[in-house]
Amino acid sequence: MAYELYYWPTIQGRGEFVRLTLEEAGADYIDAARESEGVAVMMRVMENAGRPPFAPPFLKDGETIIAQTAAILLYLGARHDLAPKDPAGGLWTHQIQLTIADFVAEAHDTHHPVAVGLYYEDQTREALRRSAEFRQNRIPKFLNWFETILARNPSGEAHLVGHKLTYADLSLFQVVEGLSYAFPKAMKRALKNLPRVKALHEAVAQRPRIRAYLASPRRIPFNEEGIFRRYPELDG
Amino acid sequence: MAYELYYWPTIQGRGEFVRLTLEEAGADYIDAARESEGVAVMMRVMENAGRPPFAPPFLKDGETIIAQTAAILLYLGARHDLAPKDPAGGLWTHQIQLTIADFVAEAHDTHHPVAVGLYYEDQTREALRRSAEFRQNRIPKFLNWFETILARNPSGEAHLVGHKLTYADLSLFQVVEGLSYAFPKAMKRALKNLPRVKALHEAVAQRPRIRAYLASPRRIPFNEEGIFRRYPELDG
Repeated sequence: MAYELYYWPTIQGRGEFVRLTLEEAGADYIDAARESEGVAVMMRVMENAGRPPFAPPFLKDGETIIAQTAAILLYLGARHDLAPKDPAGGLWTHQIQLTIADFVAEAHDTHHPVAVGLYYEDQTREALRRSAEFRQNRIPKFLNWFETILARNPSGEAHLVGHKLTYADLSLFQVVEGLSYAFPKAMKRALKNLPRVKALHEAVAQRPRIRAYLASPRRIPFNEEGIFRRYPELDG
Repeated sequence: MAYELYYWPTIQGRGEFVRLTLEEAGADYIDAARESEGVAVMMRVMENAGRPPFAPPFLKDGETIIAQTAAILLYLGARHDLAPKDPAGGLWTHQIQLTIADFVAEAHDTHHPVAVGLYYEDQTREALRRSAEFRQNRIPKFLNWFETILARNPSGEAHLVGHKLTYADLSLFQVVEGLSYAFPKAMKRALKNLPRVKALHEAVAQRPRIRAYLASPRRIPFNEEGIFRRYPELDG
């Protein structure tokens, strides 16, 4: 039976981390909220499920519903050989993903530092301050950590964990992709000193299934409704 | 061999979620950064580990180092019977914990909406806006979700998952405790309509090991350096 992924149909957002893993796995899945009436179904599941998701994305696998991006990837990674089989390696991969989730939340808050329920235009002043901090301190701190992990991987610098691709590699690709869209100037500077992160980003983009996915209509273009938004005044 | 927990020694912070689980488990552990030279050791591990934590808290179990609060609890819950043994139940407990982590991050940002590296006093104006939003919209949204989960638990309303205590129950206790310290007025209003969350909070506080812990010097009092801070101007 096909997986059903539920996420807002017009943005990459957090759902994109799940899409990338499903695509790389070659898994049979439906991007369910992009189907006709899909959002209404999504809202009904969130309201009525015995174990209700707090927010999208969530994955339905038969009767099992799993929310929280990192938990979904923990589940899929084990099933589709996109995480190490040994418990310590699996937990380390998950730990990296959780740190990526923190980074993504901070990236979101650059344009929504006050309230998710308000428009960007109603919190621009705060966004300018938060973005400056994010560009100057947080982007380097997070990306340097990934660079360090790649450098210290005893199996080689091509992957965050072990000697082959994990969902954490896919997620780091997506973060670099998103930040490069949102903060092109800051990211160009940052990546200069991060050859391993840069190489991983390029290698993931060239994987056959990922390349096909990125060129397909299944990949929603970046826009100013998602997590990674290009507001030139926030870059610098 | 005793677990070693590493976290900032003067605050409850994220480390407290781990402390509560270790205490309820009756596990043998050292709050390592509170020992002499402990912070220096903590910083050395973060800099030099083959799998370096991005930030505290992290747990050392022999040679294994685990960071990210939710990942630590996933690890401890399975070892100390504080999570269901069935995979779906274990993942659901983890999913609740990840949502608690999101809630905690938002609680932190009420007093640090611009930058973790700046003092509260340098972002008070932004904090006032963010806190109003947090009190009016986010506290009710998150706490209502927990109330719903308790109400829908087929094994009874006393626990978030199944018929006995999990680490998620301990974490929800701590969130209610922390928010009641930081936002006493807003929380008094919110809890009026959340009998199940209130009852769970009271029941956890009365568990023998938790009660003993809370009365001991191991429990660091809330203060204005941690995640949950009492700034009266942010409550209302």
